[in-house]
Amino acid sequence: MKDKRCVVLLSGGLDSAVTLYFAKKSGFDCSCVSFDYGQRHKRELTSAKKIADAAGCPLRVIKIDMGWGGSSLVDKKMAIPQKPSGSKKIPSTYVPGRNIIFLSFALSFAEVIGAEAIFIGAHAQDYSGYPDCRPEFYKAFSKVIKTGTKAGVENRKISVETPLINKTKAQIIKLGARLGVPFGLTWSCYRGGTSPCGKCDSCHYRNKGFKEAGLIDG
Amino acid sequence: MKDKRCVVLLSGGLDSAVTLYFAKKSGFDCSCVSFDYGQRHKRELTSAKKIADAAGCPLRVIKIDMGWGGSSLVDKKMAIPQKPSGSKKIPSTYVPGRNIIFLSFALSFAEVIGAEAIFIGAHAQDYSGYPDCRPEFYKAFSKVIKTGTKAGVENRKISVETPLINKTKAQIIKLGARLGVPFGLTWSCYRGGTSPCGKCDSCHYRNKGFKEAGLIDG
Repeated sequence: MKDKRCVVLLSGGLDSAVTLYFAKKSGFDCSCVSFDYGQRHKRELTSAKKIADAAGCPLRVIKIDMGWGGSSLVDKKMAIPQKPSGSKKIPSTYVPGRNIIFLSFALSFAEVIGAEAIFIGAHAQDYSGYPDCRPEFYKAFSKVIKTGTKAGVENRKISVETPLINKTKAQIIKLGARLGVPFGLTWSCYRGGTSPCGKCDSCHYRNKGFKEAGLIDG
Repeated sequence: MKDKRCVVLLSGGLDSAVTLYFAKKSGFDCSCVSFDYGQRHKRELTSAKKIADAAGCPLRVIKIDMGWGGSSLVDKKMAIPQKPSGSKKIPSTYVPGRNIIFLSFALSFAEVIGAEAIFIGAHAQDYSGYPDCRPEFYKAFSKVIKTGTKAGVENRKISVETPLINKTKAQIIKLGARLGVPFGLTWSCYRGGTSPCGKCDSCHYRNKGFKEAGLIDG
C-alpha cells in the first residue's frame, strides 16, 4: 500500500483515463469513482470498469438521480449537437451542476478514506465551453473544501488536482501514450451506440486530437 | 404562479420547516428537495412530505448513495452521542460532505427550473459545530455557483439563502411560531424511533430551544 491516497473521477472517457494513469505515476494509491446519472452514453461505465481493472485500481459506481433533465446528455427528447458550433455558447450537452455534484461525492468519499487529493480530468482548452471545466471553478471548489469539511477545518488538505486543465486534446493524448493508457478501452462518444458516431463534439475533438498528436486511436 | 422561484432543502426537521415557511412568506414559489441518503432517522422523510403538503409545495426525494459511511448518522455500527459533549470537537454525527452534496443537487435542480435562490436552514450558533453550517462555507459555495454553472457565467444569479444562520434555536422557534409552522409534523431526533429519544444532540437543542422560547413543542 502506498502512503498517498487519492480519489480519481473516472468517466470511462479518454481524459479521465489519462488522469488516472497520471495520478498512479505520481505515486498515489488511487480509488476510482464513476457515476451512473442517467447519461445517454451509459456504455462509458463499462469502459470505466475496464480501465480501472487495467490500472489495478478499485472502482465505485455511484448511482445518482438527476431526473430533472436540462441537458441533451440525459434527456433523450433533446438532440445531441452534430458538431462543434464554433460559437462561444455553452452547448446543450452541458449538464447543470454535474461536475459540482461529482466533486461533492468524491470529496465525501475522500474525507472518509483519508485521501489527500481528488483528481479530475477537466480541461479548459480545446473543449466545449463548459463552465465547470475552468480553473476558476476548481479554485472556488477548493475553498468549499477548506471551509465546509472537517478535514478543511482541521487543516488536513484535500486538494483538487486538474493535471490536464491547460492541455490541448493532442497534448493529453501524447501524455496518455507516454503513460501507457489503454486508449482502446476508453469511450468518448456522447451517443453511446455500439461504435462512436464520429459527429458529436466529443468524437470530433477526440479524432482531431489523435490526428494532431500524430497517433492512431485504439 | 409567483414569479420568483426557489428550491428549499427540506429535511423534515424543525429548522428546514421554518426555512420553507420563511421562503414562502418572502414571496417565493417553493420547490422542496429531500434526500434519502441512508440516514438512520429516515423517518424524517415522512415528516418532510407532510410539511411540504401542509405548505402546499411540491417535494422531490432524491435517493443518494453515501455507502462509504464515516458518520454515526449513516453507519449503524457507530454510536449516536448521548448528549452534547461541550467540547469544540466536531461530533460523530457529522456526515462528510453532506451539505455540499445536498447543495450541489439543489443547484442543478435550481438551474434547470430557473430558480433564483436555494434556501437552507443551516445555522451556526447554538449547534453542534458542523463545518458545513458556517457562513464562510456558504460564501465559498456561492463562488462555486458563480464560476461553475451556466447561470453564473450568464449572470443569472442563483443565491444561497440561509435565513437562520445567525439565530439561536429559541429565535428559530419563535420565528416558526409567527409563521405558523406545524412543529408537530417535524422530526429532529437522530435515532429515528417511534418517538424522540430526548437524549441526542438534536433532541437536546430542540427541547432547550422550546424552553427558552417559552413555547410548547408539538
